[in-house]
Amino acid sequence: MPNAVVLLSGGLDSATVLAMARQQGYACHALSIDYGQRHRAELDAAANVARALGAAGHKTVSIDLTAFGGSALTDAAIAVPTGGVQKQGIPITYVPARNTIMLSLALAWAEVLGAQHLFFGANAVDYSGYPDCRPEYMRAFERLANLATKAGVEGRRLSLHTPIIAMSKAQIIELGLKLGVDYGLTVSCYQADAAGRACGVCDSCRLRRAGFEAAGVADQTRYFSAPA
Amino acid sequence: MPNAVVLLSGGLDSATVLAMARQQGYACHALSIDYGQRHRAELDAAANVARALGAAGHKTVSIDLTAFGGSALTDAAIAVPTGGVQKQGIPITYVPARNTIMLSLALAWAEVLGAQHLFFGANAVDYSGYPDCRPEYMRAFERLANLATKAGVEGRRLSLHTPIIAMSKAQIIELGLKLGVDYGLTVSCYQADAAGRACGVCDSCRLRRAGFEAAGVADQTRYFSAPA
Repeated sequence: MPNAVVLLSGGLDSATVLAMARQQGYACHALSIDYGQRHRAELDAAANVARALGAAGHKTVSIDLTAFGGSALTDAAIAVPTGGVQKQGIPITYVPARNTIMLSLALAWAEVLGAQHLFFGANAVDYSGYPDCRPEYMRAFERLANLATKAGVEGRRLSLHTPIIAMSKAQIIELGLKLGVDYGLTVSCYQADAAGRACGVCDSCRLRRAGFEAAGVADQTRYFSAPA
Repeated sequence: MPNAVVLLSGGLDSATVLAMARQQGYACHALSIDYGQRHRAELDAAANVARALGAAGHKTVSIDLTAFGGSALTDAAIAVPTGGVQKQGIPITYVPARNTIMLSLALAWAEVLGAQHLFFGANAVDYSGYPDCRPEYMRAFERLANLATKAGVEGRRLSLHTPIIAMSKAQIIELGLKLGVDYGLTVSCYQADAAGRACGVCDSCRLRRAGFEAAGVADQTRYFSAPA
């Protein structure tokens, strides 16, 4: 069974990607990054999801991005927007260079494991405002990965898989349910409370709820206030 | 004065690059990464070097790469080679994806500062065995950086400067001395003791000492044993 490193945030998207990678026959080494995010409950969710979906291993690595700030997710002084999903420009929930940092860490683990496959649950449909969720960014990272590593130099080519990058939230949910993902375990909310309950009004909650509605399935999310 | 983020390990190369960036008129924000390296004394050296060379700021960010291991620098069970500089292949002191991780963190800080310049003291002459020290890797990272960030998307182009990548150690030392670098403050040894004294026999010590000899200047390094 080939080894893969799967970035697992604890949210809906990455849980689905883990299920897809498992179904494709990979031994999945799930990697979660504690970067000082406001919604720390997603890290507990990641551990539960990794266990439920049969990951071969799970690590959580800490890197304190609050040292730089610059995002509503890493600076307590910047509020998470709750007024409706932003249609244009780059949202304040964008964390500078976060995906590059997370993919770099996945690459490090892959190199040590001898894994040639990275799985990443980026989605360019609902979050087109994040520059590091675009397909051209993913291709550039894959190219870099092959120049950066012993594996690349020695001809053991690394592949970056982003299987849900072009799917709608409803398509992701439909696929995940077929693969047995328990979305009740996942936490997507940008300001989830310590128990993992969601606000219902941040962009992430709104997109997630709309996805359940469009898929025509019950929203298993636990909310700490009634959804707006 | 334009802002720059300068990766500063505390060693000879990055100290020289900081001096070069200062001389070129940049306000230098020095970034050191505590990645669990064996030679932790280099982090104290970095703070001293940042102060001595007039950095506008200095941060040390922690990321525990011992969680992955796979290198003599991040796994206490793998010894640092001391028998002479390896001529072929990738040395065991290579830390998987380290430069990608460090550059990603520099990119995060640059994005928050609004800095369009990254300086990195990679050298491809003495360390041709490290895949992530090659010029083609640097070009691929620069390209990625411009796809990854708000700055790149909005047309504020990011540049990755690697001014010593093609210099010999002797050339680096000669230039640094002209720019007033106090190499006595720097720590290059892979197994420096807590006081920053060097072993004299690891690859890094051997290359550094040979550099001082070739430059015809006194080696200011403090050793804990007489050099071999």
